[in-house]
Amino acid sequence: MMGRLICAGLGPGAADLMSLRAARVIEGAREVAYFRKKGRKGMARTIVEGMLHPEAVEHAMEYPVTTELPFASPAYREALALFYDDWADRLAAIARESDVVVLCEGDPFFYGSFMHLHSRLQDRLEIEVIPGITGMSGCWTATGVPITWGDDVLTVLPGTLPEAELARRLQDTDAAVIMKTGRNLPQIRAALETAGRLGDAWLCVRGTMEGQRIAPLAGVDPEDCPYFATVILHGNGRRPSLDDLA
Amino acid sequence: MMGRLICAGLGPGAADLMSLRAARVIEGAREVAYFRKKGRKGMARTIVEGMLHPEAVEHAMEYPVTTELPFASPAYREALALFYDDWADRLAAIARESDVVVLCEGDPFFYGSFMHLHSRLQDRLEIEVIPGITGMSGCWTATGVPITWGDDVLTVLPGTLPEAELARRLQDTDAAVIMKTGRNLPQIRAALETAGRLGDAWLCVRGTMEGQRIAPLAGVDPEDCPYFATVILHGNGRRPSLDDLA
Repeated sequence: MMGRLICAGLGPGAADLMSLRAARVIEGAREVAYFRKKGRKGMARTIVEGMLHPEAVEHAMEYPVTTELPFASPAYREALALFYDDWADRLAAIARESDVVVLCEGDPFFYGSFMHLHSRLQDRLEIEVIPGITGMSGCWTATGVPITWGDDVLTVLPGTLPEAELARRLQDTDAAVIMKTGRNLPQIRAALETAGRLGDAWLCVRGTMEGQRIAPLAGVDPEDCPYFATVILHGNGRRPSLDDLA
Repeated sequence: MMGRLICAGLGPGAADLMSLRAARVIEGAREVAYFRKKGRKGMARTIVEGMLHPEAVEHAMEYPVTTELPFASPAYREALALFYDDWADRLAAIARESDVVVLCEGDPFFYGSFMHLHSRLQDRLEIEVIPGITGMSGCWTATGVPITWGDDVLTVLPGTLPEAELARRLQDTDAAVIMKTGRNLPQIRAALETAGRLGDAWLCVRGTMEGQRIAPLAGVDPEDCPYFATVILHGNGRRPSLDDLA
């Protein structure tokens, strides 16, 4: 009897924003795995604090130390590929005897690390993915303003793109979300300025979590921006109002 | 003592994909409102079947009959504006005595009808919005393939855009989601073909729900496509693999 690999999307950060299905699976799990940085508890593990079964066995998948290697270097990519290969094999071995639940912040198929296990295991195991509320949704909800109306186009951009590319795309969209902000904030700021959208942009840090910060991006110190901060540009599309018809 | 207006995002359709927070609020609500088409039970009400408090008072907000009016006509827009104005006043009156919970499919601030109540009531009432898993996330999860990797750009497009505009944007993105498909399917299909992406596109109907259908778009009969069908184009971005380094 072969176990399954179940990836539970945890949502944007507040524990009660995970789905009923994810909660049920997590509470019943006897084998639980999650990614984290070395030396940290990890966001995913923090979200499920108090929910795990007393007999659950935990597998912390610690990213290889990478800060000393450039992000795009072959050495960095090799270290990560070996890391995912290794954990794919380990989880497959555990799943020979039991279901394994992998915890994933946000929505697993939306820029999630789990995808690197999924691509390695999809032909070897039965896999179930439970979607989650995205981090960006937690952020735009936290701003108190809708992100898209009517015929608005929404563009989701990684802040790692070149500045000119960011500016070109920001000029050509109604609403936008920029992920992976952190050290990329200066170029993101410049791109927003080129696109004439800097005044409309909001920065959201730790959306839905303790310590949540929402601020107009123009006033944020570029030195004070964590990697998981998200930039939100709201759309402004069609909405029926009697004023428009006057 | 003034009540609050709480909008509970219900997620993509399966009842157990709503958040723990939304479930708690819905189960405790004594005044519950939801949109629906005249003569239908409505998707939002269907999702919460069996969850409502026995004493809950239900307010079905039935869209004005509109099929005989062109979507962009002043008469259609006036009917909708009056409809939202009316329900904003009615909910504000109820909230003078009690909390009111508005049920919303998907994520309320992402193309949701609730936004038209929110814009009318945000200065008159305390409003809490509970985010939800988007319908598009339910759809891409149902395809079994991740939507975005690494530096992928994701573009969300309403299928109501002109064909040339759709084609231009589809040519210039890694991943895409096209909402509001239905009668727009022929032009969406043509735009995907122009962009050279028709072979990669999937159509998802009733994602995560009973009767879910996932099919390559190229093979779908354009006459057989409901409005809430979603087109998914997966991204294919950076992913560390030892094969790439060979």
